[in-house]
Amino acid sequence: MSFPEKVKIVEVGARDGLQNEPQVSTQAKIDLINGLSQSGLKHIEAGSFVSPKWVPQMADSHQVLRSITRFPGVAYSALTPNLQGFLHAIDANVDYIAIFASASETFSQKNINCTIEQSLERFEPVVSAAQKKGIPVRGYLSCVIDCPYEGKIAPQQVRNIAKLLSSLGCYEISLGDTVGTGTPVRIQQMLEAVNHDIALEQIAVHFHNTWGQALANLFHALSMGVSVIDSSVAGLGGCPYAPGASGNVATEDVVYLCHELGIETGVDLTSLTQVGWSITQHLNRTPSSNVALAIGKQ
Amino acid sequence: MSFPEKVKIVEVGARDGLQNEPQVSTQAKIDLINGLSQSGLKHIEAGSFVSPKWVPQMADSHQVLRSITRFPGVAYSALTPNLQGFLHAIDANVDYIAIFASASETFSQKNINCTIEQSLERFEPVVSAAQKKGIPVRGYLSCVIDCPYEGKIAPQQVRNIAKLLSSLGCYEISLGDTVGTGTPVRIQQMLEAVNHDIALEQIAVHFHNTWGQALANLFHALSMGVSVIDSSVAGLGGCPYAPGASGNVATEDVVYLCHELGIETGVDLTSLTQVGWSITQHLNRTPSSNVALAIGKQ
Repeated sequence: MSFPEKVKIVEVGARDGLQNEPQVSTQAKIDLINGLSQSGLKHIEAGSFVSPKWVPQMADSHQVLRSITRFPGVAYSALTPNLQGFLHAIDANVDYIAIFASASETFSQKNINCTIEQSLERFEPVVSAAQKKGIPVRGYLSCVIDCPYEGKIAPQQVRNIAKLLSSLGCYEISLGDTVGTGTPVRIQQMLEAVNHDIALEQIAVHFHNTWGQALANLFHALSMGVSVIDSSVAGLGGCPYAPGASGNVATEDVVYLCHELGIETGVDLTSLTQVGWSITQHLNRTPSSNVALAIGKQ
Repeated sequence: MSFPEKVKIVEVGARDGLQNEPQVSTQAKIDLINGLSQSGLKHIEAGSFVSPKWVPQMADSHQVLRSITRFPGVAYSALTPNLQGFLHAIDANVDYIAIFASASETFSQKNINCTIEQSLERFEPVVSAAQKKGIPVRGYLSCVIDCPYEGKIAPQQVRNIAKLLSSLGCYEISLGDTVGTGTPVRIQQMLEAVNHDIALEQIAVHFHNTWGQALANLFHALSMGVSVIDSSVAGLGGCPYAPGASGNVATEDVVYLCHELGIETGVDLTSLTQVGWSITQHLNRTPSSNVALAIGKQ
């Protein structure tokens, strides 16, 4: 078996994670992001410039991005749904931005109130404004395996929308198993479909552990040569479709797996687990990370 | 990728699981085992005939085995450390028995108070008594990856002890990652070592999810052709070396993975999840199974 020599971990806990958790204080977010930087993570999603009406948990993203300590070599990003959000994000000094679409037509309409095509059209001005400023744009694609409304999503459909995001100008496409029902063979079929148009180096996997399969999927993706992984410290981020179930795959569990496979992550696992313990203590619970529980709070 | 057409799941929740949980009533155990039989599981470890001084949780194994409903086609088993235990187990009408050794010398001495060699010698009369009665004997081998005292255990050492268990007369060797630190490449090295002497069909994998890697390991073992899996409904059985951390891999998560890979298990997943919810309700907690949490209590 062969694996990438090293992987790039995109830490999404402070955004994708916390936007699905109860409100946390601005200071706790700043401490979290500083802790993540200190643990060796180099790509940290720090906030979201969507309307506070939609996502009140992210209303302080500007302040958070302005107040964190900028560690050398660490890139801080934010979600920007429109030009207004993009300008705020630039003002908050983001290093790159992210836009998002869904591979499911129904999910797109229920989640962001427009068709997939319309969502891509709306992102066009954001992407071109970013390009003018030399700001890289990452693309998220949700529901790449199943949709909570439509059920199975065909790999060919995922391929088509991923290609559109790439043509729009995204340097990297993060493929999200939003519902967490994916298993290795379906993940492989989906990745192979997308890989027809997009190089493996530009594909990120974004797995949710709702059905317990995230690490198996990740292991399989690594063995296929995927080398960009989205994950969330302490597994932050519940799954809105399955109350009580876990959300994003935990960064601690990902880092442990990678290190044991001889794959470099740049992350200090012990330090990372303590960051996870701190933020979940703030949320009055324990980390949704088996590795964090096994290592314990120190 | 190819996988076995079907797998044999050995459900260890009622023994390996419950012996690491707070005491539960005899009736709850009986209900649990009957529920497991009803869900389609065909191999159920139902108790342990060790001294009640050591494992008080299993003191009622005789009564449990005598009181359960015997479903046609289901084999019920028990752990039997010595001849006295074996005779009790026979009197309770077990279909097969299990003996246990460790691949770690220190673990053997701390856990069962004798060397590995002595432990195998002590099992000899049990195995020959079983053979005279035509009762199959299963062998458990613990610490096949790491030992809580010794650290890494060499695959060659696992191979040697597995071979001794096999020579003793065990029809199947269950290889236990007791500490749950294993990851796919190390699992593969260990399985390949054992497979030098023991056919793949006679090898069972017994993974703990303490470090979150059990499903990844299981997926990899399945892709190597392993077709016997030990698991525990609701992930019953904490890990004594990591308080709060999960123990055995949950049968629900295993069944979901297998079905999604097109591997037959014979188990009705919905029915199984409800059995897991019932027993954990009795234990005043929720199942340690992502699939059970995702499906929910019905």
